[in-house]
Amino acid sequence: MGVNAAPLEKLIEQFARLNGIGRKGAARLAYQVLAMDHEQALAFSDAIRDAHEKIHRCVVCQNFTEAEDCVICRDATRDRSTICVVESPRDVTAFEHTREYKGLYHVLHGLISPTEGIGVEQLSVQELLARLADGTVTEVIMATNPTVEGEATALYLSRLIKPLGVKTTRLAYGLPVGGNLEYVDDVTLYRALTGRGEM
Amino acid sequence: MGVNAAPLEKLIEQFARLNGIGRKGAARLAYQVLAMDHEQALAFSDAIRDAHEKIHRCVVCQNFTEAEDCVICRDATRDRSTICVVESPRDVTAFEHTREYKGLYHVLHGLISPTEGIGVEQLSVQELLARLADGTVTEVIMATNPTVEGEATALYLSRLIKPLGVKTTRLAYGLPVGGNLEYVDDVTLYRALTGRGEM
Repeated sequence: MGVNAAPLEKLIEQFARLNGIGRKGAARLAYQVLAMDHEQALAFSDAIRDAHEKIHRCVVCQNFTEAEDCVICRDATRDRSTICVVESPRDVTAFEHTREYKGLYHVLHGLISPTEGIGVEQLSVQELLARLADGTVTEVIMATNPTVEGEATALYLSRLIKPLGVKTTRLAYGLPVGGNLEYVDDVTLYRALTGRGEM
Repeated sequence: MGVNAAPLEKLIEQFARLNGIGRKGAARLAYQVLAMDHEQALAFSDAIRDAHEKIHRCVVCQNFTEAEDCVICRDATRDRSTICVVESPRDVTAFEHTREYKGLYHVLHGLISPTEGIGVEQLSVQELLARLADGTVTEVIMATNPTVEGEATALYLSRLIKPLGVKTTRLAYGLPVGGNLEYVDDVTLYRALTGRGEM
């Protein structure tokens, strides 16, 4: 790749390090940066630095935040009796988009995955258990992904939490809204059938 | 999107400004930046700033370079009688990858496109004509994309250059190597047929 000037090559490499961006995609993004106004390029550069320097985990729920605790944990109108346990901060955003959930969250920052060498000690499990100590929380919703790792993590946590006298629940399985029966896999269809509710 | 801390939201916005990256993709990339080591995040931030500050257009061929003129224009072993005219620096990289072309390049930084309001004056056409003045160049290869804009630009430039006594050529049309006749469009097949060569 000797044709590219060194700073351009470096920028391409930086983009290519990101998951989901290949060498050609990285080059396309780098050229876009070069085509920006200088102010815009500086704003982009600063945004990366700032985000990395200012953002850390909320001391309560472990979600990303700028302050010591996050806006959700600080919000007095939220229902403090319910904690929704999710894998990543992105999942919090997804739930908040529904505008239906009014409880608190707990971000694990990963799922138990023996194949990837991720054990319980790498997840924020101790922080979750600490939140259940004073008896305010009465329900913990396991909102991990419906995958092998998500199920295993939910099951593991549920076994830890139940003895504390806190109810644990799991997100419902079933047909995706707007989906087509024909294209739904067998396991999901079976779950939708066994989980059927009265109309 | 009030859930995200401001610096995170800013970073997501910066990624989302790039073409080909949507809001969800931008969020995914921003979370990756947060998960980086601090050194790595700084290197990324600096790469953007550096590329934008250090890279400019080669005074000769208009390709991106760190020095005044680019490595290709400076290379004494290149054939100075041939100029390959391309739309963007990415096309130079593509040609260099073939390791077959030994001449020089000229980067237009765009194509004539009335629908997008891009006229000749926005392209580096004057710089190209200036390079043809001293008679060193005997052939200009039009290597713009085989699209309406690419064709129009090639035709326009060819009409400008021919009166200067310089030969203009166009990249060959035909079957893509490794392709399948069945899936080739009619126009390409017709071009491959009319452009057939003796074996």
